[in-house]
Amino acid sequence: MIQTLEALRDAVKGQGSKTLAVAAAGDAEVLLAVDMARRLGIASAILVGDEEKIRTIAAQRHIPLEAYRLIPEADPVQACRTAVKLVRDGEADVVMKGLVDTSVILKAVLDKEIGLRKGPVLSHVALFQVAGYDRLFYVTDVAMNIAPDLETKKHIIRNAVGVAHALGNPDPIVACLCAVEKVNPKMPATLEAAALVEACKAGELPGCRVVGPLALDNAVSPEAARHKGIQDPLAGHADVLLVPNIETGNVFYKSLVFLARAKNAGVIVGAKAPVVLTSRADSDEAKLNSIALALMISASNLPR
Amino acid sequence: MIQTLEALRDAVKGQGSKTLAVAAAGDAEVLLAVDMARRLGIASAILVGDEEKIRTIAAQRHIPLEAYRLIPEADPVQACRTAVKLVRDGEADVVMKGLVDTSVILKAVLDKEIGLRKGPVLSHVALFQVAGYDRLFYVTDVAMNIAPDLETKKHIIRNAVGVAHALGNPDPIVACLCAVEKVNPKMPATLEAAALVEACKAGELPGCRVVGPLALDNAVSPEAARHKGIQDPLAGHADVLLVPNIETGNVFYKSLVFLARAKNAGVIVGAKAPVVLTSRADSDEAKLNSIALALMISASNLPR
Repeated sequence: MIQTLEALRDAVKGQGSKTLAVAAAGDAEVLLAVDMARRLGIASAILVGDEEKIRTIAAQRHIPLEAYRLIPEADPVQACRTAVKLVRDGEADVVMKGLVDTSVILKAVLDKEIGLRKGPVLSHVALFQVAGYDRLFYVTDVAMNIAPDLETKKHIIRNAVGVAHALGNPDPIVACLCAVEKVNPKMPATLEAAALVEACKAGELPGCRVVGPLALDNAVSPEAARHKGIQDPLAGHADVLLVPNIETGNVFYKSLVFLARAKNAGVIVGAKAPVVLTSRADSDEAKLNSIALALMISASNLPR
Repeated sequence: MIQTLEALRDAVKGQGSKTLAVAAAGDAEVLLAVDMARRLGIASAILVGDEEKIRTIAAQRHIPLEAYRLIPEADPVQACRTAVKLVRDGEADVVMKGLVDTSVILKAVLDKEIGLRKGPVLSHVALFQVAGYDRLFYVTDVAMNIAPDLETKKHIIRNAVGVAHALGNPDPIVACLCAVEKVNPKMPATLEAAALVEACKAGELPGCRVVGPLALDNAVSPEAARHKGIQDPLAGHADVLLVPNIETGNVFYKSLVFLARAKNAGVIVGAKAPVVLTSRADSDEAKLNSIALALMISASNLPR
């Protein structure tokens, strides 16, 4: 079971060459991340985008373009479609976003004709390595689903559980985070947490165990759970942390990275192949981790 | 301007004796916190509660009851009313919750006849001291208001700004935290953030400056704000962090204390005197800090 981001990068290196399809690759930050992944033996890449822009950046940043296949496509919409098709046709393993709006690349991913649509919900899964904890936390969804309803939350859990499986955790514990540990009808998130526990017991969420509602401390620390008198033996042992809404997720994500100095990775899952979206605010290491995470997921024997 | 929790405790010590009115004081953890505050010269206390219970705990925990005034009152509802009346009559400065439900003590605080009602909204303000930052963050509301509407958010801001003023910050910067930095009609918190900025410009939120919507990193780090291309000069310099809902606040609070190892304090404000509610999960230092925070607020020359 992979429980550090370093182990994740090593596992991907050990799998042999994997390929990124970079959509609208004419972005210096993205090209630098891709080239770092290549130099470290994590991935090769096919660059789809504005050839002149890519060549200019490569010259300025000393990126050896001869190490890459380049598909000229100046139009960002077409570049996204081409990158997605490369994955669909088995020429690449993962789609990576370059200089194009997220909505454009996701539209190509979800395209009925050339896309990679699988389940009904795409969601973001973030991985965090926090000092003092012996395991990775999977936090979802901190970036994509704004205010998911109960059915959407089930898909978000399934997507995250698939990621945990890909990293060798066969039975992750999913905690439904809330502000309190008891069901309170004034807090809809607590009602949905209880419903998700029931859904898991009823077999709707295979390959995981679900606990909640829990506050964050009782989800990750057995000592805190004991202190609060929580009986559920899963409390304190969560791997996956389901946040009730995007504000909770985003503030949690930012507090982990910027205030708790956690290391991280992130990926969009729910399609037939994962999608990497790095942001300028990501550290170089976080960008590499995200590429490695996506490749690890694509390599797993999950049913596509 | 007080910018560390140690400075806060020192400032309260420097003010001379202040008094807590402890409601339903027959709780070992609460009595130990109160006695620690007494020994450190932060506060004395009047203990209202079940005399036998208080005497038993005091004997077991070596708490010198002769240092306290004790008002026997076995009924928790009456104990809350008595403690509130002590503050109202000027015999004590702050109400502190003992072994009684929060709802019971707040009912006494809000009682029209004997209570301390002032504005229309009570709210929780948490103070955090985070390693690497040179100032205290005021986070609100992580514990009381579940899903505040725009008008309630205005009161929550006013309450938190009053706390910042009490700690010597005459013009705190309030950031309205969201998942993104741009107004997005699909995310109501961003619309309300923009409305709060306008309300401040219109004079509805005096004694502060409001900025938002901002993600957490752009609220607290000028470098992150620059990196994201945010023009507002207030971005990155927030003192007060307004969270959009209780889940965001509670997960943020727990991640700061349990994952970022921040030091903290908390208090309920909005009444004529602050209310201290410590929890078993608080460290001894956090309990002391909360008592000091409440006493600092009660001592400030805020209009009551």
